Amino acid sequence: MSPFPSSAPRTERWHHLRFTAHDGVATVTLARPEKLNALTFGAYADLRDLLAELARERSVRALVLGGEGRGFCSGGDVDEIIGATLAMDTAQLLDFNRMTGQVVRAIRECPFPVIAAVHGVAAGAGAVLALAADFRIADPTARFAFLFTRVGLSGGDMGAAYLLPRVVGLGHATRLLMLGEPVRAPEAERIGLISELTDEGAADGRAAELARALADGPALAYAQTKALLTAELDMPLAASVELDAATQALLMTGADYAEFHAAFTEKRPPKWRGR
Amino acid sequence: MSPFPSSAPRTERWHHLRFTAHDGVATVTLARPEKLNALTFGAYADLRDLLAELARERSVRALVLGGEGRGFCSGGDVDEIIGATLAMDTAQLLDFNRMTGQVVRAIRECPFPVIAAVHGVAAGAGAVLALAADFRIADPTARFAFLFTRVGLSGGDMGAAYLLPRVVGLGHATRLLMLGEPVRAPEAERIGLISELTDEGAADGRAAELARALADGPALAYAQTKALLTAELDMPLAASVELDAATQALLMTGADYAEFHAAFTEKRPPKWRGR
Amino acid sequence: MSPFPSSAPRTERWHHLRFTAHDGVATVTLARPEKLNALTFGAYADLRDLLAELARERSVRALVLGGEGRGFCSGGDVDEIIGATLAMDTAQLLDFNRMTGQVVRAIRECPFPVIAAVHGVAAGAGAVLALAADFRIADPTARFAFLFTRVGLSGGDMGAAYLLPRVVGLGHATRLLMLGEPVRAPEAERIGLISELTDEGAADGRAAELARALADGPALAYAQTKALLTAELDMPLAASVELDAATQALLMTGADYAEFHAAFTEKRPPKWRGR
Repeated sequence: MSPFPSSAPRTERWHHLRFTAHDGVATVTLARPEKLNALTFGAYADLRDLLAELARERSVRALVLGGEGRGFCSGGDVDEIIGATLAMDTAQLLDFNRMTGQVVRAIRECPFPVIAAVHGVAAGAGAVLALAADFRIADPTARFAFLFTRVGLSGGDMGAAYLLPRVVGLGHATRLLMLGEPVRAPEAERIGLISELTDEGAADGRAAELARALADGPALAYAQTKALLTAELDMPLAASVELDAATQALLMTGADYAEFHAAFTEKRPPKWRGR
Repeated sequence: MSPFPSSAPRTERWHHLRFTAHDGVATVTLARPEKLNALTFGAYADLRDLLAELARERSVRALVLGGEGRGFCSGGDVDEIIGATLAMDTAQLLDFNRMTGQVVRAIRECPFPVIAAVHGVAAGAGAVLALAADFRIADPTARFAFLFTRVGLSGGDMGAAYLLPRVVGLGHATRLLMLGEPVRAPEAERIGLISELTDEGAADGRAAELARALADGPALAYAQTKALLTAELDMPLAASVELDAATQALLMTGADYAEFHAAFTEKRPPKWRGR
Repeated sequence: MSPFPSSAPRTERWHHLRFTAHDGVATVTLARPEKLNALTFGAYADLRDLLAELARERSVRALVLGGEGRGFCSGGDVDEIIGATLAMDTAQLLDFNRMTGQVVRAIRECPFPVIAAVHGVAAGAGAVLALAADFRIADPTARFAFLFTRVGLSGGDMGAAYLLPRVVGLGHATRLLMLGEPVRAPEAERIGLISELTDEGAADGRAAELARALADGPALAYAQTKALLTAELDMPLAASVELDAATQALLMTGADYAEFHAAFTEKRPPKWRGR
């Protein structure tokens, strides 16, 4: 828990996704397998608010985002979202599209690494959720498709036109966002869209293992690494170097840095405290 | 035609390049094959003004840029440009170099995808024209060379020092712009400089096919995807997410989005109107 | 020598690294092979001030940064730096971390290309020094490791969270900076972290050869290419195109551009003057 709690209570139950947390590792599972985990308004809203709660609680040190069943996430539900948005007025449309973007910002800005465990389809908004994560652990069945233009919308959805060129370069990003063609695991690995390719069926397990290691490690160092990677995409070199200097000076007063030195001197593994 | 025409007439004839347009697909061909399509002052000026006309007319939904003969484009003509610039004064030199940059901005900022069809040499300014395009369809004979330093000039010409690191990363971009060495098709594909590699001699045909598909598809969605990719390279994450939300809300009021849903419901292919 | 010397004398002797200069090529060698060239306070300070002197003198047209013995550089010395920083107060910690960042800025901003010749380990600050260089010439023994989190610190050290995503993309950069795992030569080449892979033991020789070629070539053109690459990472497209235009107009008044044209016309190789 954060040492600075507000009056806001913790939400007891999330209705639109499955959430568990154990010893610093949170697991969020999209769990509508009969619909390939297609996203609903409720699922977006739950992701937005769950991530905000976790960010302020500080009990989580790593988060795994996965999908139950045959795939990761097929994107916005054609009936429940596309159909419904056709009946929305201007303000409602903006509210909806801002909400989806808030989920991506929450993933990029939360103070812990997010690991997407991807198998099968990661399409539309599902592909962007994976893209926004810090790690994409995928198995050979993984298939990314930024298929927004296929439904008549802009490929720049939820920050994809910002993020994808910074992950795979402008050339590949243009092709992927403009055409909406599927990217299978070998190509995704080749262009840098996948962080780690596992054996078939092993993505969830490997993501959990990595999350465990991150939560048990120097978690404040990981959190700051993520924060600087996110911030410095939008900063010039000189300011980035100054931010790094201030951050590093701060972490050099932390428990884990002293512990590393003590452990090194005593020729033993460090006991990380994550602070 | 744009619903908001000004008094400016359409140019009847472009003297320094070959231009055709058919049902939304424009084709611009550099056509000095005896000089490997080396660019002249007239060719730069025609590209600048043609793209501006096409951008305001809105009759074009995709553009193919290709070269006639043995290669795509060998860059600025050694006699007609390098020789001439040696006799220019300060203001003339700035005018010339601004013009070449305006062509690149026009390619990046026009409201339709630009597809470079590359075979043989794409050198100097020719390499940057291809680089500025949204797609680079190349055949195995393609050879890119940013050879500006080879003539004593800066590798940062026409936006190349901005664009190339964002396409292939700073390491490769430094090597290519600093040394001016040729990059053949296999390497170009490996580092992300090529969007699609075709069989020998097939780049023009494949580019035309892609342009046809883009023009027949949800063209407003493609145009907005391009606009967001271009804009968000220069924007921070939070603003990009907001721009995406506003753009997507707008497109959700468009004809093509409704048509997708109708077609999906009726289990038939969508009839895109491009708006 | 700069035509605009100040009163500041040239430093006669650098105590914490080996420095030689010959006909425009400077060579800086990290020379504590018994410690895998671990960096000390003195080595950082020497790098910072040496690069500043070379930048103002203008006698250097290319610089090679290498390491003596079994590897390139193992990073900050565990005893002399980590131990010492544990006893520092707030202001001292900030001074130290700013100094290391100043070295990276000096490498990125000096008016000549910097070539890192890497064999064996390039770890921690050593990996960032190589990353900041314009070229990374590496042999098959090269092993990069951004191992800051392994000592409880942020992976964003000395600008690494700014530079690495711009070299290898955000996905790979996150993995490398967050986990601190070693990247061996084949992977480094695949993701664009290496500019050129040599035979074993040949990195120093090849780096010297490239430096020689750069110093003997159109050095002002190379210097401006580097300056624009560095600047335009932090600039929008329109401003970059304007900067390119002004720079190119300037270089078109230079000796080397005229020499290229004369040599081309006379069918002989150009005699570059580097101005």
